Amino acid sequence: MAARLSSIEEYKALVDKYDTWLFDCDGVLWNGTTLVPGATESRKMYKTKFDKLGVEAHVDEIFGSAFASAVYISSVVKLPKDKKVYVVGMSGIEEELREEGIAFLGGTDPADNTLEPFSLGDWTPDPDVGAVLCGLDTSVNYTKLSKAFHYLLHAPGCHFLATNEDSTYPTAHGLLPGAGCIGAPLRYALGRDPVSIGKPAGTMLECIKAKHDFDPARTIMVGDRLNTDIEFGKNGGLATLLVLTGITKETDISGPNASTTVPDYVTQSIADLRTIFS
Amino acid sequence: MAARLSSIEEYKALVDKYDTWLFDCDGVLWNGTTLVPGATESRKMYKTKFDKLGVEAHVDEIFGSAFASAVYISSVVKLPKDKKVYVVGMSGIEEELREEGIAFLGGTDPADNTLEPFSLGDWTPDPDVGAVLCGLDTSVNYTKLSKAFHYLLHAPGCHFLATNEDSTYPTAHGLLPGAGCIGAPLRYALGRDPVSIGKPAGTMLECIKAKHDFDPARTIMVGDRLNTDIEFGKNGGLATLLVLTGITKETDISGPNASTTVPDYVTQSIADLRTIFS
Repeated sequence: MAARLSSIEEYKALVDKYDTWLFDCDGVLWNGTTLVPGATESRKMYKTKFDKLGVEAHVDEIFGSAFASAVYISSVVKLPKDKKVYVVGMSGIEEELREEGIAFLGGTDPADNTLEPFSLGDWTPDPDVGAVLCGLDTSVNYTKLSKAFHYLLHAPGCHFLATNEDSTYPTAHGLLPGAGCIGAPLRYALGRDPVSIGKPAGTMLECIKAKHDFDPARTIMVGDRLNTDIEFGKNGGLATLLVLTGITKETDISGPNASTTVPDYVTQSIADLRTIFS
Repeated sequence: MAARLSSIEEYKALVDKYDTWLFDCDGVLWNGTTLVPGATESRKMYKTKFDKLGVEAHVDEIFGSAFASAVYISSVVKLPKDKKVYVVGMSGIEEELREEGIAFLGGTDPADNTLEPFSLGDWTPDPDVGAVLCGLDTSVNYTKLSKAFHYLLHAPGCHFLATNEDSTYPTAHGLLPGAGCIGAPLRYALGRDPVSIGKPAGTMLECIKAKHDFDPARTIMVGDRLNTDIEFGKNGGLATLLVLTGITKETDISGPNASTTVPDYVTQSIADLRTIFS
């Protein structure tokens, strides 16, 4: 059972117990303040947002699913340098792939951002595509889905990857379809699931370990989603703190419909921790 | 085990045995000859196509999943007359809804056919939406998906419907994502499946029965897909004939990976039946 935090003493004890704090952003640090809410963002985009909010953070302290995807493609998939990634996603993914030296196509290419009819007869597939990567894409359309489907069906050994599996994401005005929805038509057409790289998968934690020295026993993951953030912490052997400012509601963690994913700690909002400094 | 037809005698016996013949179109009568291939078409659109191909057919002999969906909404769902359907689909669906006197929005409305960013804050939902209907939509986009998701999440008792569940469809140049893929992001975001109205569901057969008097024991369904056409015939107590000019390949019906759906008869192409007239 999760420990409910409410007193200053409890918050102080928590801060004493853990040296390294990992924070999910959307639903924890902010809600729907992005220009394109829920987009899979690059570390530079997050850094700009932190700056605007007056939060001190270095790019090396920021880890996103777009970054983790680029690292996964180069170090786990080990995509050959002459191969390319077809992107069903936005500029944040492209930026991280570019930084990692991975060639890509699709994405924000104007030729693929169209609602015009698509015919395989008018198109020449790129013979070098070796992976399809799906992330949140508010410009998703039938041309992109058709090209991605064609590569996954016909390109030899083409990897099917997703930045993360979020089914929805919270905006200031309500829920919208999440990044996991973008690859759903391809799942359905192919009858198989992508490898998901973001939370709760361990790839992101591997990326963090590669850059920072920390003791998992004194590290805590703070998040608003049980099936991604909290599972991510648990899978990595970290402590977990659930906040209720995002996706998860009280009824998801108590009562007859409570999830089987139980965080170590629960508090209403990350803002509660400020009480120890007042 | 399916009977393989090959001799003139076998084809003649088949034609003698069945008085009523139901034909799937895409993959059976034609392949990818449509302007927008695979679109969920209205009966009038099919009629125009039959005329072009020189095939005699009356509109009353044509049944499509768009028509069946409209009939389903008015006679099974019994959507109140002051309620509307939000359409993630194209003009064929709109035409059938209009003929059935069902109010709708979305669909081909230019306001919903855009790749511009979508925010719930800039949009007023229509309080009269009582159903979301998804069909093949080559203009599918994030705005349509977001609005449909919002209605399904918040409109009281909102029905989640799909014209059919085809995962892919065959064009002259290869496979593209099918109608079933269009609602897949909504399935994923909601964690629930739509009611699918087209084959293999029985709604279309009920529509046919309402217009034509036929003896199921002397009726045969001809199709190219095991999980839709052949299952549709079997569910309706009809005989079934599989042709191999569309989705299903020889390896799907014989050998170690053969499907458990077994048609009564198999022949290479519907053209084989012409041999009895030569």
